[in-house]
Amino acid sequence: MPSSSPSSAETRAHPTINDIRAAAERIKGKAVLTPLLESPALNAKLGGRLLVKAEALQRTGSFKFRGAYNTLVQLDERQRRAGVVTYSSGNHAQGVAAAAQLLGVPATIVMPKDAPAIKVANTRGYGAEVVLYDRYTENREEVGRRIAAERGAALVAPYDEPKVIAGQGTAGLEIVQQAKAIGATLDAVIVCTGGGGLTAGIAIAIAAECPGTAVYSSEPADFDDTRRSLLAGERVSNDPKARSICDALLAPTPGELTFAINKRLLEGGFAVTDVEAMRAMATAFDALKLVVEPGGAVALAAVLSEKFPIAGRTVAVTASGGNVDRETYIAALRQS
Amino acid sequence: MPSSSPSSAETRAHPTINDIRAAAERIKGKAVLTPLLESPALNAKLGGRLLVKAEALQRTGSFKFRGAYNTLVQLDERQRRAGVVTYSSGNHAQGVAAAAQLLGVPATIVMPKDAPAIKVANTRGYGAEVVLYDRYTENREEVGRRIAAERGAALVAPYDEPKVIAGQGTAGLEIVQQAKAIGATLDAVIVCTGGGGLTAGIAIAIAAECPGTAVYSSEPADFDDTRRSLLAGERVSNDPKARSICDALLAPTPGELTFAINKRLLEGGFAVTDVEAMRAMATAFDALKLVVEPGGAVALAAVLSEKFPIAGRTVAVTASGGNVDRETYIAALRQS
Repeated sequence: MPSSSPSSAETRAHPTINDIRAAAERIKGKAVLTPLLESPALNAKLGGRLLVKAEALQRTGSFKFRGAYNTLVQLDERQRRAGVVTYSSGNHAQGVAAAAQLLGVPATIVMPKDAPAIKVANTRGYGAEVVLYDRYTENREEVGRRIAAERGAALVAPYDEPKVIAGQGTAGLEIVQQAKAIGATLDAVIVCTGGGGLTAGIAIAIAAECPGTAVYSSEPADFDDTRRSLLAGERVSNDPKARSICDALLAPTPGELTFAINKRLLEGGFAVTDVEAMRAMATAFDALKLVVEPGGAVALAAVLSEKFPIAGRTVAVTASGGNVDRETYIAALRQS
Repeated sequence: MPSSSPSSAETRAHPTINDIRAAAERIKGKAVLTPLLESPALNAKLGGRLLVKAEALQRTGSFKFRGAYNTLVQLDERQRRAGVVTYSSGNHAQGVAAAAQLLGVPATIVMPKDAPAIKVANTRGYGAEVVLYDRYTENREEVGRRIAAERGAALVAPYDEPKVIAGQGTAGLEIVQQAKAIGATLDAVIVCTGGGGLTAGIAIAIAAECPGTAVYSSEPADFDDTRRSLLAGERVSNDPKARSICDALLAPTPGELTFAINKRLLEGGFAVTDVEAMRAMATAFDALKLVVEPGGAVALAAVLSEKFPIAGRTVAVTASGGNVDRETYIAALRQS
């Protein structure tokens, strides 16, 4: 469990819609303006309108580039020279590595030994140094802090950091603008949730731009710490023995700052099984032609499994990432 | 071989950039403005800048919706009631079926018995009647013409038709605009080529908007009728015994009108093997998170196989469609 008390996050400044707008200006031309996809055939089957924010098409294959770039571009000259350190199961790693490469900043990334090979290889491909740790016996925050202290480098937290949250929120701003452009009025937005940075950022954007639209988290079963924390009114943790195929969403507990935001702005949360996530990956293949990784499919899975039925409604979901090994993807296509 | 002489196509009015601009207005809000994707990692590997027009994300999973909608929306009331007939291996079928459904026009589609199951199922899913024929013993144009005559319906040719070509050309207009928006100056555009409708449409758009940019066709080996016709200066046919996994690109000979345009505007053509197309599908999975079908991968394959080396250059390719059966896709992922 984090050492600081929940109240410190509630007094810490929350990012605002203006921070998200400023982030949108900063990432312009660097991040991909990912499309909001829909399948008329899938809509007909669901009896509603499903809009899929295709963040798998984002630079580095996930939304994480948004927050990483928004953070790194605000470092001063001295900080840029000293470099950055972060810890990540893979998508934040790639986001930070790619942003660092674009800005000429040295990056060191602490990654779990069992991260998908493609994520480790890509992170190294962006020129970052990768330090591996054991997800089940070591504490990644500690490893990251130690390296940062040794090198005088800035630690870029994967989600519990206002600039990261503001950067991820740009996806929410785009969802609002793109839905408007096709004449869709959003009843709800469901966001794939790990530490809660994308969720908090999107929730802030939606609250400011479409206050009538409900925002929900979606998580893997047994990693539904945000869902259970929302019900409990305080941060609860996942069982350390829990396992899921959704490697991007295995944060042990909601972030302090992200939960303070999500507690205020979220309507509730869903939990989906690994099988439901894999079926959603297969549906994204069939109906959307989009490669989605397990953790990027849980919001779509909440709709397809009818945990959140969308008949008669217009609902946007994030397809947050597409960094998946071929064998895992093949297993998903064979699943259903 | 088609019965009319090449000269009739040369005197027939060719679609112009104004026809393409008008088509762009007609499809606005109906077709997806598909992104022009790129992978910094892939660019680094190729030593150039590769931009991928992601038409797999288009409504119905291929560019064909553009030309179909542009044609059907121009039918008069009497024609709309009488309905439309077309023949297609699958992507034009789905494009016409979806456009017809949107416009309330009855549609009959003549499809080969060995078309991918997903294409036949989707075509029926859009409410069209499907009539199957044998690709190797029957003539699909004849079957289509007979049904059209019986029903008083309009025949919508898959590529050799000015309104279809103008519709497909909207993809070229978007490539130009999207490249400009990211500060890219195109040295070349490579287009997946079957009958040549997309190629001709894009070539017209490029000639008008970026006259210095070379346009090339890319085709499956043994179905490289456009490439060989360009060399011969007249339309030549493929060996009827040829086979390829690229089911979308098996037209026996270039269209009369499309070839008259392509002869005037194309720099040349490439032919890629099935294995090269499958490797390109796998690269699109890894680097772009985009599901591409075999025929939609041949332009990307021309670059990846270095038939067209792009070192030091900026090149756009079409990823024309993503309608591929799961087993074929799995085979492609396991190929390389």
